[in-house]
Amino acid sequence: MQQEVGFMGMGIMGGAMAANLVRAGYSVTVYNRSRDKCGELEEMGARVADSPAQMARECGTVIAMLTGPQALEEVLFGREGAVAEFGENTLFTNMSSVSPAFSRELAGRLQSSGCRFVDAPVSGSKKPAEEGSLVILAGGESTDVEALRPLFEVMGKKVVHCGPVGQGSMMKMAVNLLLGTMMEGLAEMLNLGRQGGLDTDSLLEVVTSGPLNCGLFQIKESMLREEEYPAQFPLKHMSKDLKFVLDTAYEEGASLPTAHAVSQTYATARNLGHGDQDFAAVLSALQRLNAKH
Amino acid sequence: MQQEVGFMGMGIMGGAMAANLVRAGYSVTVYNRSRDKCGELEEMGARVADSPAQMARECGTVIAMLTGPQALEEVLFGREGAVAEFGENTLFTNMSSVSPAFSRELAGRLQSSGCRFVDAPVSGSKKPAEEGSLVILAGGESTDVEALRPLFEVMGKKVVHCGPVGQGSMMKMAVNLLLGTMMEGLAEMLNLGRQGGLDTDSLLEVVTSGPLNCGLFQIKESMLREEEYPAQFPLKHMSKDLKFVLDTAYEEGASLPTAHAVSQTYATARNLGHGDQDFAAVLSALQRLNAKH
Amino acid sequence: MQQEVGFMGMGIMGGAMAANLVRAGYSVTVYNRSRDKCGELEEMGARVADSPAQMARECGTVIAMLTGPQALEEVLFGREGAVAEFGENTLFTNMSSVSPAFSRELAGRLQSSGCRFVDAPVSGSKKPAEEGSLVILAGGESTDVEALRPLFEVMGKKVVHCGPVGQGSMMKMAVNLLLGTMMEGLAEMLNLGRQGGLDTDSLLEVVTSGPLNCGLFQIKESMLREEEYPAQFPLKHMSKDLKFVLDTAYEEGASLPTAHAVSQTYATARNLGHGDQDFAAVLSALQRLNAKH
Amino acid sequence: MQQEVGFMGMGIMGGAMAANLVRAGYSVTVYNRSRDKCGELEEMGARVADSPAQMARECGTVIAMLTGPQALEEVLFGREGAVAEFGENTLFTNMSSVSPAFSRELAGRLQSSGCRFVDAPVSGSKKPAEEGSLVILAGGESTDVEALRPLFEVMGKKVVHCGPVGQGSMMKMAVNLLLGTMMEGLAEMLNLGRQGGLDTDSLLEVVTSGPLNCGLFQIKESMLREEEYPAQFPLKHMSKDLKFVLDTAYEEGASLPTAHAVSQTYATARNLGHGDQDFAAVLSALQRLNAKH
Repeated sequence: MQQEVGFMGMGIMGGAMAANLVRAGYSVTVYNRSRDKCGELEEMGARVADSPAQMARECGTVIAMLTGPQALEEVLFGREGAVAEFGENTLFTNMSSVSPAFSRELAGRLQSSGCRFVDAPVSGSKKPAEEGSLVILAGGESTDVEALRPLFEVMGKKVVHCGPVGQGSMMKMAVNLLLGTMMEGLAEMLNLGRQGGLDTDSLLEVVTSGPLNCGLFQIKESMLREEEYPAQFPLKHMSKDLKFVLDTAYEEGASLPTAHAVSQTYATARNLGHGDQDFAAVLSALQRLNAKH
Repeated sequence: MQQEVGFMGMGIMGGAMAANLVRAGYSVTVYNRSRDKCGELEEMGARVADSPAQMARECGTVIAMLTGPQALEEVLFGREGAVAEFGENTLFTNMSSVSPAFSRELAGRLQSSGCRFVDAPVSGSKKPAEEGSLVILAGGESTDVEALRPLFEVMGKKVVHCGPVGQGSMMKMAVNLLLGTMMEGLAEMLNLGRQGGLDTDSLLEVVTSGPLNCGLFQIKESMLREEEYPAQFPLKHMSKDLKFVLDTAYEEGASLPTAHAVSQTYATARNLGHGDQDFAAVLSALQRLNAKH
Repeated sequence: MQQEVGFMGMGIMGGAMAANLVRAGYSVTVYNRSRDKCGELEEMGARVADSPAQMARECGTVIAMLTGPQALEEVLFGREGAVAEFGENTLFTNMSSVSPAFSRELAGRLQSSGCRFVDAPVSGSKKPAEEGSLVILAGGESTDVEALRPLFEVMGKKVVHCGPVGQGSMMKMAVNLLLGTMMEGLAEMLNLGRQGGLDTDSLLEVVTSGPLNCGLFQIKESMLREEEYPAQFPLKHMSKDLKFVLDTAYEEGASLPTAHAVSQTYATARNLGHGDQDFAAVLSALQRLNAKH
Repeated sequence: MQQEVGFMGMGIMGGAMAANLVRAGYSVTVYNRSRDKCGELEEMGARVADSPAQMARECGTVIAMLTGPQALEEVLFGREGAVAEFGENTLFTNMSSVSPAFSRELAGRLQSSGCRFVDAPVSGSKKPAEEGSLVILAGGESTDVEALRPLFEVMGKKVVHCGPVGQGSMMKMAVNLLLGTMMEGLAEMLNLGRQGGLDTDSLLEVVTSGPLNCGLFQIKESMLREEEYPAQFPLKHMSKDLKFVLDTAYEEGASLPTAHAVSQTYATARNLGHGDQDFAAVLSALQRLNAKH
């Protein structure tokens, strides 16, 4: 707990995760491109870095939780990027969602800096991030994953070591494929039923009283009833993750016929303007494609 | 409880449901095309009818639990079919899976017999049938559904009145669409992960430790681990039900892009010879379509 | 040429085909549910029957060209239906689009009347019907197909004997699957290109200057350029035919992954209100699902 | 015609295109990673460069026709890569298939070298390459495209200027999407028909006697009849191009529901071992997924 922990990315997820580290007594330096998003953490006692490079100079452990490859590229390799200050004593952990291929490529590009690297995306969105109940999907050397375990256990309730670097991202792809498919399945189920004259309450009652009932459906139930979709996990991010899934399936030669349809459906929902709503809003997109009775 | 209850169809589901009625003290007459399947019920005290017509003459309440439209057609309108003996005092309940369109058409054809008709397919397969914990999805007049409630509560743990005749089948389509999509989602998730180098245990651990965990996945977990698929719900029946889903979506003008891919995938699995295995065997079919590493 | 030819169905297709028979010197009796659609043929010299039954009494050869199974059901088995007057000397030819399963079932139901039966749907829409250049896809006994050949050669430029009854419809399904897929392919090609900044003229120029160029694309070119879609072949009929394709694939165990997506896309276009436009209007539906730039 | 033309990539396409330039009197220097593939051109009178850099030093016009982004990366930016020798007098033309995004990114990376850049993929495969009848899809400045026109007209029969850099690749994506969809459509049509009892000859007869007939189907007809698929355009390349199509659709927000299914089907065919056959072999893959009769 002696070492300074650097945390890049103060979005919905990153902000909540860094706050849990501060609360647990860690000394944390935060960085965000728009500095004003760091205000809350600063009030809690975190330091604010002026640049990724400054953070990397001062922190042995650096964590990134950003929106994707492009943002990572910038904080790591851009102007005043962190990598210039990485060294043998740096343990860098990327918790952002990226494809396994990107993760492995990043590992290669980080090698010359001498740093150690763990990819550790998470399963869970806003609420588990706030409650410290994420599931952390780690890929990397066992010793590195073990070194990070105390921090991971502050941010999450479970750590699964999935294999070497890249395999954390592989697991994340797999989980998000199931997440996206289950939500799409529920949306199509409701869409079929309502178009066929059933009411939403009966449909949800049947789902939640049998073996299909799960935490996900309970979380989304009120959104689907009220047709209001404040973002817990924005639909555009689900669409991006499913794009990574198709990329990975193409590279690995995995047959995923339904994933293609699911991906296409979220992309259409995004096209139709639902990208900033919660991904449960895929139901709204489906409804717009029904026949009018 | 005074009235004789007729039960047609002694398959995995029907046999278990009729047995629960006998155990609850009902006087039950059973019928099955191959009479030898009635042996167990006969030993429990049920009478065995020689023909659907004979059963209909003696029973005011007639229940059918058969494999689909063709079998129903035969027992109702075929040689010595039941309908010839239906009258104003008959309450006929079809619990077999059919499309809503077929259910409504059947209602029309039954009208001249004077009988009352409820469509009441069930959610749940072998084990809930045996344990009397099915969810019963009833479509029909409220008075008829209420009259059947005591019997339904012996066979199931919950009765949802979904609307007029046909709406029980509509709900069943909706539930089975979600069931088929969730199983397909889990299969594609495992297929992606394993093709990408993750092991089955880690994948299932991550699924079952988060908000995607549900009864369905727990029931199928050991099948998926051991790659043995003894049929609880045969894949060919899932394929048939998803065909009904597409028929219904076409008629109702409901947009179900993923359902088409899911339906196609189970049909392919059936084509490849997995029809008599449990529908979780869709994973086997996917694996056969992967690249060899 | 001595025998009276009966022709049921005076829609876009049927009207044009019957007119060609009259022009070729055949004595033709026409029937249509709304009698006013028979006016043009009457002026050309055809007789008009009051009912299908009356027509069947007077004509040894009876042809039907209707919108589908339901309309056929009515003129054949409904009130004053034709079948009641069919006998050993009747040769009945169904040229309407139906599924192979329906065709074979119809053959069975016609048997007791003693009539002979050929199923002979056509490839080609309005213009080839008017010009007598349809391709006729015949299923039935060779002797019956040969007996009809002179009439077929008036209505079409080519007769393909596809096998026993039902195989004409099987060929029609196959052709319409290709037709629908090629049109959808062109629409997606234009949609991708235009959304990516290319102009319609360049896109069509490239298509029509290489090995993808075909009569279909030439016929539809001006519709796609001007985005006006007067119906040559209404989109709702394509949607119906693709539904038959999926039914047939399910029954025959044929793997058609793309057909499912194509069928779903036309159904969505129909849902969105393009059903009465030409099936090339599927492009309009796609455009509505794009992101706004 | 004075300037030396450099040509990188002596595969099926590149070899034939470079040969046409030599035959037309151009002075050509060729390069290929495995030098032995340059033998034929050397015999025709072309010089052979030892490295891309050597070629770039000696040639004002440099053309690349390679298998994709990775091969391009290597010859341009790898060891002894060409870009190190590019200057203001270099006009570099990439005729390889890449995504529009890659093409635009490449343009950015080439800027510091001072060279001019045109992206000019082609429509057409082996035979048109040999006959000089390709369609050339050029993206870039008008002056550059005009400067290249004489060379293009040796290699192709038509040059379409599609817009700025990247738009040649955009057009190529669009064309290959249509190409892949039409071939898949024909394969599914044959698969449905044959599984339904029709014979290949009748099916092809019907296709080629109507408005669906096109050069593509005529070229592939004998392959499909004989079920032998020597590669004109290898299936794995079609699969790769369709992956680029999905990438582009995602980025541009274009709705392409069928393209997803088509892409998935070629990927499955590749997974099943048909990657090195002609892309018409997608029919073989479909057949393996049918029910056995």
